[in-house]
Amino acid sequence: MIENYIKGFSSTSGDDFQLNTITMLKHAASFFPETQLTDRNLDGTLFRYTYQEAYDRVKKLANALEDLGIRPGDRVGVMEWNTHCFYELYFAISGIGAVLVQINPRLSENDRTYVLNHSGTSFLFVTELMLPLIEPLAKNLPLIKGFCIITDKTVNQIPTSLSPVKTYEKMLDAALPNHQWAMIDETSAFSACYTSGTTGRPKGVYYSHRAIYLHTMAGAASLQVGLKDVVMQTVPMFHCHGWGIFFIATMTGTKLIFPGIYTAETTQILVDLMISEKVTMTCGAPAIFLPMLEYIKTLPQKPDFTGLKMFSGATEPSLALMKGYWDLGHAKIIHAYGATESAPIVTVNFKKPILDELPEDQQWEYKKKQGLPLTGIDVRVVDEKGKDVPRDGTTIGEILVRGPWITSSYYNDERNQDAFTDGYWRSGDGGTLDKNGYLKISDRFKDLIKSGGEWISTIDLENQIMGHGAVLEAVVVGIPHPKWEERPLALVVLRNAMQTDPMQNNHDAIRNGIYDLLADNFAKWQFPDEILFVDTIPKTSVGKFSKKEIRAAYGQHYMRKFKIKR
Amino acid sequence: MIENYIKGFSSTSGDDFQLNTITMLKHAASFFPETQLTDRNLDGTLFRYTYQEAYDRVKKLANALEDLGIRPGDRVGVMEWNTHCFYELYFAISGIGAVLVQINPRLSENDRTYVLNHSGTSFLFVTELMLPLIEPLAKNLPLIKGFCIITDKTVNQIPTSLSPVKTYEKMLDAALPNHQWAMIDETSAFSACYTSGTTGRPKGVYYSHRAIYLHTMAGAASLQVGLKDVVMQTVPMFHCHGWGIFFIATMTGTKLIFPGIYTAETTQILVDLMISEKVTMTCGAPAIFLPMLEYIKTLPQKPDFTGLKMFSGATEPSLALMKGYWDLGHAKIIHAYGATESAPIVTVNFKKPILDELPEDQQWEYKKKQGLPLTGIDVRVVDEKGKDVPRDGTTIGEILVRGPWITSSYYNDERNQDAFTDGYWRSGDGGTLDKNGYLKISDRFKDLIKSGGEWISTIDLENQIMGHGAVLEAVVVGIPHPKWEERPLALVVLRNAMQTDPMQNNHDAIRNGIYDLLADNFAKWQFPDEILFVDTIPKTSVGKFSKKEIRAAYGQHYMRKFKIKR
Repeated sequence: MIENYIKGFSSTSGDDFQLNTITMLKHAASFFPETQLTDRNLDGTLFRYTYQEAYDRVKKLANALEDLGIRPGDRVGVMEWNTHCFYELYFAISGIGAVLVQINPRLSENDRTYVLNHSGTSFLFVTELMLPLIEPLAKNLPLIKGFCIITDKTVNQIPTSLSPVKTYEKMLDAALPNHQWAMIDETSAFSACYTSGTTGRPKGVYYSHRAIYLHTMAGAASLQVGLKDVVMQTVPMFHCHGWGIFFIATMTGTKLIFPGIYTAETTQILVDLMISEKVTMTCGAPAIFLPMLEYIKTLPQKPDFTGLKMFSGATEPSLALMKGYWDLGHAKIIHAYGATESAPIVTVNFKKPILDELPEDQQWEYKKKQGLPLTGIDVRVVDEKGKDVPRDGTTIGEILVRGPWITSSYYNDERNQDAFTDGYWRSGDGGTLDKNGYLKISDRFKDLIKSGGEWISTIDLENQIMGHGAVLEAVVVGIPHPKWEERPLALVVLRNAMQTDPMQNNHDAIRNGIYDLLADNFAKWQFPDEILFVDTIPKTSVGKFSKKEIRAAYGQHYMRKFKIKR
Repeated sequence: MIENYIKGFSSTSGDDFQLNTITMLKHAASFFPETQLTDRNLDGTLFRYTYQEAYDRVKKLANALEDLGIRPGDRVGVMEWNTHCFYELYFAISGIGAVLVQINPRLSENDRTYVLNHSGTSFLFVTELMLPLIEPLAKNLPLIKGFCIITDKTVNQIPTSLSPVKTYEKMLDAALPNHQWAMIDETSAFSACYTSGTTGRPKGVYYSHRAIYLHTMAGAASLQVGLKDVVMQTVPMFHCHGWGIFFIATMTGTKLIFPGIYTAETTQILVDLMISEKVTMTCGAPAIFLPMLEYIKTLPQKPDFTGLKMFSGATEPSLALMKGYWDLGHAKIIHAYGATESAPIVTVNFKKPILDELPEDQQWEYKKKQGLPLTGIDVRVVDEKGKDVPRDGTTIGEILVRGPWITSSYYNDERNQDAFTDGYWRSGDGGTLDKNGYLKISDRFKDLIKSGGEWISTIDLENQIMGHGAVLEAVVVGIPHPKWEERPLALVVLRNAMQTDPMQNNHDAIRNGIYDLLADNFAKWQFPDEILFVDTIPKTSVGKFSKKEIRAAYGQHYMRKFKIKR
């Protein structure tokens, strides 16, 4: 892979000292023993403990894992929400050299079975509430030797078909307190996450200790987390280790909040925690930040979010979203870009001093870009021949990434050949780079619409539609069209569709308003042929619009109409 | 060395992507091409260029080095002040897999000769003004095959006995513009620095690419450098690569200022640059920050240093120093600790939220501590049996450090056995850890005074004496005493010794004032027997008090007196 490789003069540095994830927690327990971690229980009460206490439990957990017969290299599955127990499992499983396999509860049953078997998971931790997601599958999981239910109950208190089975707190109670950590070769896998929302079966990414350690260091430097920060782990820890935000907090000795269970329908949990715990940094996506803002609008007293940084991924944040938080004490939505394959952070949209010279509205537009790549990874945007496109902010190419925290293959997968080129991971995302070095995703290649031989960006359409005051969510997909090959179709959820409102049926006026708005930036032929008002838009397990499902449901919309007309 | 080492499951991460120093500059040129580097010329004018232009020159320099016959693993010496040329040499020499040997111009001629020969340096870059430091030695440097003088002149314009010789700018002019970087095994040495001020010959520390890359990442995260910062490279780049501050700036795409030549007597250069370039972050030592503050006091208009962070090493900053800068817009002196062997950052004194609860004077006292260890290295304080001392803030032990950027041996040196234990570097510094995790250096072990069987800390005495308003600098050493084995002797430079002042001979009153001050915190038997007022205190090549020289000059002071009295 690396054609031109040289070895120079020997160093005297401690180069054999390996980058191990447990080092972060050992350090936090040693030098920030008093710093608090807070976990919201299901009943809304708060569980609090310190890095010292977390570490004491992780040592016991490591001993318990070894008592279960788990050995270096073994794969251990975990199904859990964002809790302190998941946090402990991340450190203990990787700390003994085993691999934590992240099991996304939102995957389909077939995909979940596939992931557990493909990874060779031999032991599974599952939180009590997720038992119904695993019990029906157990017969199809021949490799699993045992289960542990994450609960403070005894085995007898929980009716389950799983066997053999332990329970978490009782197991910890019985474990010895001290653990002697081995040094783990840093190229060993610390955790695995399987991609979701793609065509075909999920693909396995096995992150090394080294990758996660370097990703954490780069993230800490980029996100500038300090001792006065309070970090909330909003992104689900069952997918791409929740962007590793809890690692960054641990490495920097920062206060950490786990929200436990929440969904897009219960995001008030997040807002209430942010207010009560004085959160200064969190990560998420517009799909979460938007309902949070809607909830904030209903509060009689608006929160003061001065200094708050909200790193936002998945989809482009709308102006309304960014300005909504900005009005609460200049809280910042900071756009970031990444994927399961990239551990995940590739870019973060920090503002260069040079942008201060732009007019204010252009500065807001700039915030929508995905941002600047982190130092240490190699990000390119290339044309079909693999040549870098000009940095003009308009020429679209495919985004390629390689580096120490970027996957260079999928585990045991036939699809490797198409996904990698010259050591680079092919993101499948189309994007541009501008003269200031900022990356902007124009579209997933498969989401670009080819209409009459010309390209239309669905993301640009979506973002423009989102600018209409009545619109809560909007998605645009390309679907087959008898004349133009493909044409855009828009699905829109209205803000007041959720409320009883005399205006709610005035769809024609809103539709015309949206077309007026589109006229500012698009040619008529680029407009969606139709705008459909719907109650909800299907989303993937990680909160992105599921264009796959949308196409499945609406794919024949234009074809059918055409047929009827004919 | 590492007894318990395990290899787990294979990862799919890009673990073969090596950490190379050139990656930082490549990234800065690619994503911060417009960001400026500024270098103060000898005549006070400013040279400005960008990361893009710096990188373009580094590529030519790499080609020029290869044209000179320099190959991976070769050692290339550099003698230069803090200039953009030194910056370029750091990246180009390490970028082709060779080793930059840092030659400290303040070393003695014998030590300089030793370093050049011991390292096997085969080519030497020397700035024009330092020619007199190398020409007399050249006959004793049999391994050197050639020289390059850092200047924009031609060879013919410079009379020198060195041969064969090139000149820097002309060589660059002739070099090809493009360079294809190889990937360098990250355990290869990027640079070497030899310790100074120790007994015996300097000892060679050869830093790997990996060590420097990780040190830079950890430093960037800890120092929280952001895009709005302006960083000044104050610490000499010829010693421990100036703490790697220029690497941190490059990694984060931050504006960077090189002050060129300055000495402790011309620190107004630094102050003027900080004001004109709006510097927000710099690093140095009280020996530099103190005369800077004295100069600032003479300015009719006081600078506004709001937001300025000054990382300070070598010796403990005095209250007067910290408060002097604090009065200029709450500029912060942030104490840090490290050594040549540790690349160098070991601890930085950042304030934990828990300290906010302390009374203000105790918060100031806390700022004097060396601070909290960076995550990633293993810092211990141990007693004579190698057992960790209690974290009570009072029990002194020796500080041991190991980790990826800590040296684990000296290059080709017989003194290795005493300097390392179980993979840890023995710092030779005595210190305490307190319950909040803060490290405080009590003393170099060899600088602790054993008087009548009891220990006296010279550093504590020095810091208390520094609290007297008339005192500019103070040093305390233990010297032989016929009755008590050793007793402290204080040397003091008075603030107005530098000025004509009618009070300047009122030594007795000042001496009594100092003893009054000492009475607050010390027992009478711990007082220095004598306080001598001197014009200057000898310093080492890196600006620390040279206790070795002081002992050589004053070592017989008490013995002689006793003899006379008898």
